[in-house]
Amino acid sequence: MKIIGAIPRPVQRLIDQLSWLPGIGPKSASRLAFFLLRSKEEHVVQLGESLISLKRDTSFCSVCHNITSSDVDPCIICADVNRDTDLLCVVEEPLDVLAIERSGTFEGIYHVLHGAISPVDGIGPDELKINELFNKIRTSEIKELIIATNPNLSGEATAMYISKQLSDGDLRITRLARGLPVGGDLEYTDEVTLARALEGRQDM
Amino acid sequence: MKIIGAIPRPVQRLIDQLSWLPGIGPKSASRLAFFLLRSKEEHVVQLGESLISLKRDTSFCSVCHNITSSDVDPCIICADVNRDTDLLCVVEEPLDVLAIERSGTFEGIYHVLHGAISPVDGIGPDELKINELFNKIRTSEIKELIIATNPNLSGEATAMYISKQLSDGDLRITRLARGLPVGGDLEYTDEVTLARALEGRQDM
Repeated sequence: MKIIGAIPRPVQRLIDQLSWLPGIGPKSASRLAFFLLRSKEEHVVQLGESLISLKRDTSFCSVCHNITSSDVDPCIICADVNRDTDLLCVVEEPLDVLAIERSGTFEGIYHVLHGAISPVDGIGPDELKINELFNKIRTSEIKELIIATNPNLSGEATAMYISKQLSDGDLRITRLARGLPVGGDLEYTDEVTLARALEGRQDM
Repeated sequence: MKIIGAIPRPVQRLIDQLSWLPGIGPKSASRLAFFLLRSKEEHVVQLGESLISLKRDTSFCSVCHNITSSDVDPCIICADVNRDTDLLCVVEEPLDVLAIERSGTFEGIYHVLHGAISPVDGIGPDELKINELFNKIRTSEIKELIIATNPNLSGEATAMYISKQLSDGDLRITRLARGLPVGGDLEYTDEVTLARALEGRQDM
């Protein structure tokens, strides 16, 4: 087709790669590629270098499994002596930690599961950092576990699974108040709603 | 601020760089960065490499000034012996060439100005490939010049400037029919409207 010949190969390759990103369709990808062609080479190369080194320069915190710089383990939150280590908040993804930090009302520590239980997608407890969570609870002084999984089907399933497994101990298990819009995505919740949900957390 | 500590430096740097792209705000940039963190390293590195080599592997066609692979000059369109070299279409940007190619109704050749006259932004004829256009018209056998600048203020100013400078020759000067939505952007025009506008072009 004529149109394919009109786009130089290096540009077409970039368009194809950008189209693979979430929320970026072929038109946005073209627009981005041609924007980059017009931009200062320095900026474009820096962006390229950041991408190449992204995985190399980051790793997972050995304590909470959140993303951290490769040379910082445990992560800044886990290493912070001012945080309340009695209070552990379980989230699905690193972005959820950011959302809760942004609400400015949580002083405890985190545990990142890296997903939620979803039998349809073949994701069971063993695919997540759930055993690590149980080990942590057994071996440390945690008094309250706040389950902050997403308010959707797999998030609820994960919350139920965790709370059932831990129900015979004297650990207080809570979950975020149902102020969250059901079916939504935790990381997009506004700060005020999220702060309300934290304050109004209920025993489960 | 606490929230800044919660994002590892390599990730924050990538978020800042992605936010600088058009149409990508800080929230989309975070989401993209964390998507890339979850993606296969291979894919992310390939995207990074494409960005780094983008400028090195592309250059401008010495004939039409459109973007071409560094090792292909003149570009595929200029080198195509089946194209009608009597018919020259002037556009502002490389993306506009793609939009017209996509309409499938144009068999001539192109000239890319790399912008439009805009005194407010300090862009006059000398900042564009306008002298190159006049040289081309003087030294080749072009019978018709189709001015396909954007249907907005600076596009119209550019069209007027070019047609005035060339009005004393016997070159036929046309512009795309006013089927284009005024104030819009040429590259987003749908194929049918663009094909209509090409067919209905009027002498100016």
